[in-house]
Amino acid sequence: MVETSVNTLDPLVNGGALAGEGGTVRGVDPARNAETGPEYTLLAEQQVEQATRAAAEAFESYRRTDPETRAAFLRTAADRLEEAGEAIVETVQTETGLPEARARGELARTVGQLRLFARVAEAGDYLGVRIEPALPERKPLPRPDLRQRKLPLGPVAVFGASNFPLAFSVGGGDTASALAAGCPVVFKAHNAHPGTGQLVGQAITQAVREHDLHPGTFSLLYGRGSGVGQALVADPRIKAVGFTGSRSGGTALMATAAAREVPIPVYAEMSSINPIFLLPSALRQDRRKLAADFVASLNGSAGQLCTAPGLLLVPAGEDGDDLVRQVVEELSSTSGLTMLTRGICSARVEGEERLRGVSGVEAAAQGKAGSTENAPAPAVYTTDVETFLSTPELSDEIFGAVCLVIRYDSEARLLDLIDGLEGQLTATLHLDAEDGADRETAGRMLEKLELTVGRVLFNGWPTGVDVGDAIVHGGPFPATSDGRSTSVGTLAIERFLRPVAYQNVPEALQPAALRDGNPWGLVRRVDGHYEVPEGR
Amino acid sequence: MVETSVNTLDPLVNGGALAGEGGTVRGVDPARNAETGPEYTLLAEQQVEQATRAAAEAFESYRRTDPETRAAFLRTAADRLEEAGEAIVETVQTETGLPEARARGELARTVGQLRLFARVAEAGDYLGVRIEPALPERKPLPRPDLRQRKLPLGPVAVFGASNFPLAFSVGGGDTASALAAGCPVVFKAHNAHPGTGQLVGQAITQAVREHDLHPGTFSLLYGRGSGVGQALVADPRIKAVGFTGSRSGGTALMATAAAREVPIPVYAEMSSINPIFLLPSALRQDRRKLAADFVASLNGSAGQLCTAPGLLLVPAGEDGDDLVRQVVEELSSTSGLTMLTRGICSARVEGEERLRGVSGVEAAAQGKAGSTENAPAPAVYTTDVETFLSTPELSDEIFGAVCLVIRYDSEARLLDLIDGLEGQLTATLHLDAEDGADRETAGRMLEKLELTVGRVLFNGWPTGVDVGDAIVHGGPFPATSDGRSTSVGTLAIERFLRPVAYQNVPEALQPAALRDGNPWGLVRRVDGHYEVPEGR
Repeated sequence: MVETSVNTLDPLVNGGALAGEGGTVRGVDPARNAETGPEYTLLAEQQVEQATRAAAEAFESYRRTDPETRAAFLRTAADRLEEAGEAIVETVQTETGLPEARARGELARTVGQLRLFARVAEAGDYLGVRIEPALPERKPLPRPDLRQRKLPLGPVAVFGASNFPLAFSVGGGDTASALAAGCPVVFKAHNAHPGTGQLVGQAITQAVREHDLHPGTFSLLYGRGSGVGQALVADPRIKAVGFTGSRSGGTALMATAAAREVPIPVYAEMSSINPIFLLPSALRQDRRKLAADFVASLNGSAGQLCTAPGLLLVPAGEDGDDLVRQVVEELSSTSGLTMLTRGICSARVEGEERLRGVSGVEAAAQGKAGSTENAPAPAVYTTDVETFLSTPELSDEIFGAVCLVIRYDSEARLLDLIDGLEGQLTATLHLDAEDGADRETAGRMLEKLELTVGRVLFNGWPTGVDVGDAIVHGGPFPATSDGRSTSVGTLAIERFLRPVAYQNVPEALQPAALRDGNPWGLVRRVDGHYEVPEGR
Repeated sequence: MVETSVNTLDPLVNGGALAGEGGTVRGVDPARNAETGPEYTLLAEQQVEQATRAAAEAFESYRRTDPETRAAFLRTAADRLEEAGEAIVETVQTETGLPEARARGELARTVGQLRLFARVAEAGDYLGVRIEPALPERKPLPRPDLRQRKLPLGPVAVFGASNFPLAFSVGGGDTASALAAGCPVVFKAHNAHPGTGQLVGQAITQAVREHDLHPGTFSLLYGRGSGVGQALVADPRIKAVGFTGSRSGGTALMATAAAREVPIPVYAEMSSINPIFLLPSALRQDRRKLAADFVASLNGSAGQLCTAPGLLLVPAGEDGDDLVRQVVEELSSTSGLTMLTRGICSARVEGEERLRGVSGVEAAAQGKAGSTENAPAPAVYTTDVETFLSTPELSDEIFGAVCLVIRYDSEARLLDLIDGLEGQLTATLHLDAEDGADRETAGRMLEKLELTVGRVLFNGWPTGVDVGDAIVHGGPFPATSDGRSTSVGTLAIERFLRPVAYQNVPEALQPAALRDGNPWGLVRRVDGHYEVPEGR
């Protein structure tokens, strides 16, 4: 547990501690079901406004910071986070049960994300500048001078995920991309890791201070149940929402956002079972390794990853039988890992019980329960395509290391199954690309899958998301509320922007990004052609 | 009236005429309140599915057409539209009361839009290709090969506007951008101009045929009331909605789309009063010309433009008094033009009556009623900032040539007024940019206005929207349902796309847009750098 000299810590609102009037919460070590760390005060709903008011005020100046300032601020936040690294890694482990290597890896990723978005802010391509100079002689009508850029939407509410206490939490992807876009962030911490959130929040607050930004640029709220979160999304000063969590939580926020006097976009990542399709040629390779890699992907982080495999498609026949045997064997020597919270563990156990009760679903294999609390045994069940397609609840995500193996006997059944899938974050195909028949099957599957998922991958595992320019971590509903965007990677900044056109603006009033001479050195589209500064 | 050899015409569904089972409608010449043209059969709600099924089927092949095919198809549609030009211009005039010059101008714009989107489809930049080649040696983890492109969402439902029988109707902007994106279109015609819609629909259907596309790529529906439209938006095969019309109509579609099992995006353009701010230095120029230009913008197309000025801010004092006098004089010699329909005319007359009843609002000037039916006199009312800010209904759009003049006595009051504005399509500033004080005021106004509107323009008039790369015809709610997009200009294609990532896809299965060697000659982002083919 992190050393702390105080017994009570407060939400960080508008640059300072604001004593919450909605009770308190403490972290819980899920490996022991024991409370840990100090008490954190929870805001009462009527206190939320203090953060949103400050954010609205901060927006006026923060949105006008130049690329260098915004980038420097994000880099300082990354530095301060890195400096607090040891305390963060320790607190993550205590509050979430995640192992040290995972905590360190996630911290590195989170720091890397902040630095990546510093580069995005600096480069400024996200401004999407398009310039059409006036054509006074054009017939039948002259063309005015028209210049377009994207502007930040305004203060953004972000909700922390339970399963990524760093990368999808206080200083995670939504925070980084919103801040890079020029949007202040009001962050609703996840109560499962209040101490982690506090350390990260302090790092960001410190960076705000060091760069003399308005303190409302970042606030960190704690609150009980859904009240504070709902109040936040309903607040007229909030202009967009980022959320990672359950389908019920996400759809509740969508409803609130849609019912506002002025509706706002909600980017909720919710639910995905991430099918993995093994084609016959994949099984003619090293089946033992395939099974081991699959089980590692299934059980990693106790299966609590948005991209964890919940569905494994295995061909009928001897090779498939053998693969399933290998999975069973591998799994039986695998132990359950500590889950994030007692509640998440219960939901997973109940989900497995419901699965067991579905007619046509059979238990295939089980690992060992872990030695800690909240560490249920990883498990695999089997069923067939018909049962899957006729039983809607089999499409529901079970958050944890539980996978359904489906045996299929023809390409046609595979394609039927794909047609019956809901929107997913990922789909994975395994095949030997030298095998002509499987390659053709994969081509037909790809054409369906690309319409159903955010990312299609080959001969790998969906867990592990590379953070860069080309990644998409998103997908059609219910994987996310809005498949037009991604929560990971540089494209995520587009969530928080909207285009504005400027017509015949006098030169002295022209925003820098739009000025002749391109003072910010942006990639711009001028009169239909790309203007790409050297080195870009 | 267009010559026709039949007395009854049907919706165009899946490449052919489908006799509607929901009654019939005829065009009405609003200048005479007299029915005109043949009868058009209306679909019954349960017939809608025939169009959506066909569109879903068409999507499978249409989305895979290459850039050249899609561009050629859009160009043929433009050609066929142009060939039907004389009949179209005549029908538009009869069905809408719009004058010949406007009909010809709008036809040219519509043809131009189709050709513009042919170029967009051909260039393929909208695919947003980003490539990150594998880095097997990267530490701590190797980078997979990741490639991103945008895919079309699926069949799109588009609703025709009353006020642009061509440019925002059957072959208008939403149709052009959706088709360019690879989305089949199911178009719900506006019943106020069924004959115009039929001619345009035939031109597009003909182009679909000539290019051997699936006939479900385009369908044209007629329907009574909101039933057919609601059925269309609720249909699970529809993946996005484009709409231009009233706030009540738009928000009803938003509610339906949000309540679906799988919610979909709605791009509704709804309501805007397009404030025009005259700063003191603007009044030191030719006030007579300023007044004449304002009245022309107000009364053009009988005020039935989404960007028509509904609010004119005039400084207190003598110059302002004189400007208002000039407006009054100019208006008094101006005649009302025929409005689009009797219903629209009634709504406008009622809106004006409500305005007249607001305490603090005074009649300032009135033109003459037109000589046709449905041609009420253009009118100007005056009020002050306080009344405007304390009377929410003064923010409601009155669709027609009615403008509220607000006198202001300080920059502070102007800024207060801007703070009280709802989201708008446009805001306009008039000033002499050489005037230092006004330039500074304009700078402060611009910083507020750019957060409130889709387009800010200087020393011009908001009516008249240039169609190109840099335009934004959109804006925060209630101007539109989704300020993150535009309905006019090339950026509009982004409404109908979503990104997908491809990880480690075997070369043989790589989509052409993503292949090494860039066979489609796209502008792409490769490993963080722009790859811009020559000439782009």
